[in-house]
Amino acid sequence: MTPLWWRAVAEGIGTGLLVAVVIGSGIAAAQLSPNDVGLQLLENAFATALGLAVLILMIGPVSGAHFNPVVSVVDWWLGRGLSIRDVAAYVPAQIVGAILGAVLANLMYGEAAVSWSTKDRSAGHLWLGEVVATAGLIVLIFALAASGRAALAPAAVGAYIGSAYWFTSSTSFANPAVTIGRAFSDTFAGIAPASVPGFVVSQLVGAAVGVGLLALLYPSARRAADEVVTPHLDTTGASK
Amino acid sequence: MTPLWWRAVAEGIGTGLLVAVVIGSGIAAAQLSPNDVGLQLLENAFATALGLAVLILMIGPVSGAHFNPVVSVVDWWLGRGLSIRDVAAYVPAQIVGAILGAVLANLMYGEAAVSWSTKDRSAGHLWLGEVVATAGLIVLIFALAASGRAALAPAAVGAYIGSAYWFTSSTSFANPAVTIGRAFSDTFAGIAPASVPGFVVSQLVGAAVGVGLLALLYPSARRAADEVVTPHLDTTGASK
Amino acid sequence: MTPLWWRAVAEGIGTGLLVAVVIGSGIAAAQLSPNDVGLQLLENAFATALGLAVLILMIGPVSGAHFNPVVSVVDWWLGRGLSIRDVAAYVPAQIVGAILGAVLANLMYGEAAVSWSTKDRSAGHLWLGEVVATAGLIVLIFALAASGRAALAPAAVGAYIGSAYWFTSSTSFANPAVTIGRAFSDTFAGIAPASVPGFVVSQLVGAAVGVGLLALLYPSARRAADEVVTPHLDTTGASK
Amino acid sequence: MTPLWWRAVAEGIGTGLLVAVVIGSGIAAAQLSPNDVGLQLLENAFATALGLAVLILMIGPVSGAHFNPVVSVVDWWLGRGLSIRDVAAYVPAQIVGAILGAVLANLMYGEAAVSWSTKDRSAGHLWLGEVVATAGLIVLIFALAASGRAALAPAAVGAYIGSAYWFTSSTSFANPAVTIGRAFSDTFAGIAPASVPGFVVSQLVGAAVGVGLLALLYPSARRAADEVVTPHLDTTGASK
Repeated sequence: MTPLWWRAVAEGIGTGLLVAVVIGSGIAAAQLSPNDVGLQLLENAFATALGLAVLILMIGPVSGAHFNPVVSVVDWWLGRGLSIRDVAAYVPAQIVGAILGAVLANLMYGEAAVSWSTKDRSAGHLWLGEVVATAGLIVLIFALAASGRAALAPAAVGAYIGSAYWFTSSTSFANPAVTIGRAFSDTFAGIAPASVPGFVVSQLVGAAVGVGLLALLYPSARRAADEVVTPHLDTTGASK
Repeated sequence: MTPLWWRAVAEGIGTGLLVAVVIGSGIAAAQLSPNDVGLQLLENAFATALGLAVLILMIGPVSGAHFNPVVSVVDWWLGRGLSIRDVAAYVPAQIVGAILGAVLANLMYGEAAVSWSTKDRSAGHLWLGEVVATAGLIVLIFALAASGRAALAPAAVGAYIGSAYWFTSSTSFANPAVTIGRAFSDTFAGIAPASVPGFVVSQLVGAAVGVGLLALLYPSARRAADEVVTPHLDTTGASK
Repeated sequence: MTPLWWRAVAEGIGTGLLVAVVIGSGIAAAQLSPNDVGLQLLENAFATALGLAVLILMIGPVSGAHFNPVVSVVDWWLGRGLSIRDVAAYVPAQIVGAILGAVLANLMYGEAAVSWSTKDRSAGHLWLGEVVATAGLIVLIFALAASGRAALAPAAVGAYIGSAYWFTSSTSFANPAVTIGRAFSDTFAGIAPASVPGFVVSQLVGAAVGVGLLALLYPSARRAADEVVTPHLDTTGASK
Repeated sequence: MTPLWWRAVAEGIGTGLLVAVVIGSGIAAAQLSPNDVGLQLLENAFATALGLAVLILMIGPVSGAHFNPVVSVVDWWLGRGLSIRDVAAYVPAQIVGAILGAVLANLMYGEAAVSWSTKDRSAGHLWLGEVVATAGLIVLIFALAASGRAALAPAAVGAYIGSAYWFTSSTSFANPAVTIGRAFSDTFAGIAPASVPGFVVSQLVGAAVGVGLLALLYPSARRAADEVVTPHLDTTGASK
């Protein structure tokens, strides 16, 4: 079993790189395609879908490659591997990693290390978008795990986010740590700090909706406590 | 064996999310890329190809992830798992799900819950497009099933629709339930209610053409009644 | 063993659908993105890469899914499954299928069934592009076969053509049957009949270059006559 | 065991074709989409991601498909298959191949065989981009190898580069041989000769950072000398 501090560092690195991918490709898109916001989002979605899949491949065997507090909490809630102590280490690591990832993206593009985003993202229909985006993500990840297809998670999660950038009105943040990180860059993918709480609450609601749908679709996704003999983290990122 | 009501609900959820992907990404594309309809369709196709593949992965083990009345009917016709009673539950669930998915997409983008599409799609060459699109879809799905490669269906069906958005003149609806759902949104991906019957009839013709091609290419796709010992729904969405 | 006439019909259907994908998506791209030829080619490449992969999946187990005379000839030359009699049936079927596919695409878009292309594609650097495109295709297909990875051929060949649309100056026809078919449509993907011979000759040269590279990289790709016990066509399109 | 000269030639061919993909698609993109640099980069990234994945599939079983001096050096450093003598043959072959690939791309587009790039790429934030790009590439490749998933390397490396074109400010050269080759073409993907040393040094730094991260995340990636019984080059490009 990989030591917890090590897995937490891996979560931090992975979340940081994910935020660097999201923000970095957003900066490039806005600079290079100034006349069409849709094209910017397509470029951002292309980079994110591929980059997220690759990061899950890269970090999955070490820590499960959650990169996302709601995924870690649901993993614990469903009894799929993480203990509450694991969660308590993962979540701060994910948040710190996300912030450092934003700094890295800013520096790679010659911007100030930190610039608070001024992009307001507060509206009821955006929050609905976040609920849908997060619920879908949770169902996807744990449906794959519950049906023995966790090896497909890297490609599937990347594809899901690439699609959800487009079909949800909120462009699918679906991740409290990444949401916080994206407040630290006043660029294409940013979110104003004042809009962060609304997004995070929506994501928590979405996670609860996702758990409810899982209970309907995959009753076996939740393991009884006495079934969990040892925490598991398999080499394909299965617990994700 | 998963109970029928449960599988039907899963079909409804999956079809609804599929319609939400199609309509939602269409709204985003039209808003964000107002100056190039081709770019809008590329964005819509990108989101649909990835989203459809993911939804089949997500729901496949529960219900087969048909999301499409003609697929369910052909599955029954070929004796590949569904009984006529299954079909009678799947099809209404798919249609209701599709309508609710349109409502969800409208709400996510702050539109009225329902707005009838005003996009006329009635013309002989469009109907030919739907025949080709549906025939190809049927051949693909049951060719994979007949040759023991159903695990490839999620990626293959997603890729097929992403391509068919472009190579058919009708942008490949290829699905009566989704066609009905798309009438409930006066946005990029909509279809005027008056154009729905022509599309659905063309899809039924296409399904028949597809079954004919299958009989030529994969005679084994049709199972004799006495070969079907029990309905099957494998964990890879194989019956799809 | 599937009867030869049946496999030849399958080659005709597959080649026809491939040409319908190429021409159909080209017509849509030119109509919908009139202001940027690069965007048109991106749309065309997106549809072709996905559609070609799907068609190989669909037809592979029946006939090998060559859809391409130079692939069939090289398959015979390397002793990988086709007899000379097979080749004599495949090649005409591929050419007839390609022409009918062009007609289908024209009809789907409400054009005349046949319109000779007026797009001149005659220049030394374009012929060099075709040599490179075809050589690469041949090396790819038979490298996968020689190394026991033919199951990857659908995705790999689709990806190759999607890339080669861009990196070769000729937009990578790489297929004599498809080249002939594309002369029958005066649209984005067309080629003037007078330019066809130059492209076909270049493709034959490219195939020879590819066979030479294979001899260097994969000496085992060529089977000794006495190793070929029976023609093979496995379920993954392995002989392709 | 494939003879060294043969593997070195394979590395040269593969690196050459990779550079031809990068430069060729860049020329096409700049010619066909003159009004949007972002769209040019999207077209270039699309072609490179697919083309690189295909080339790794094509050459992997012969030589490991490194196509990159830092990958070959790290492979030797970690004791994963290459001897120092192998490295001494691979690296020059990669550089010569890269230069010939640039010439091929220039000729395919009717340009002079060689034209020195005039595109200045010298700035601290670009060098940081190269450090990040190269570190990520090294971690990805050897994480897959260390966790027994080398068969995923073709798709994963292609996806990584496609994403890194966007998320790094330098558009992710991440390869000294390719960097040198790209100096030989005064086109979209070129780099002025004077900017080459800064990029190469950054790539070496990135490789060292990547090795450090690997030591943290995958301690098993480095093999003890006495574990390496024989050099290995498996059929999935595992040593890459």
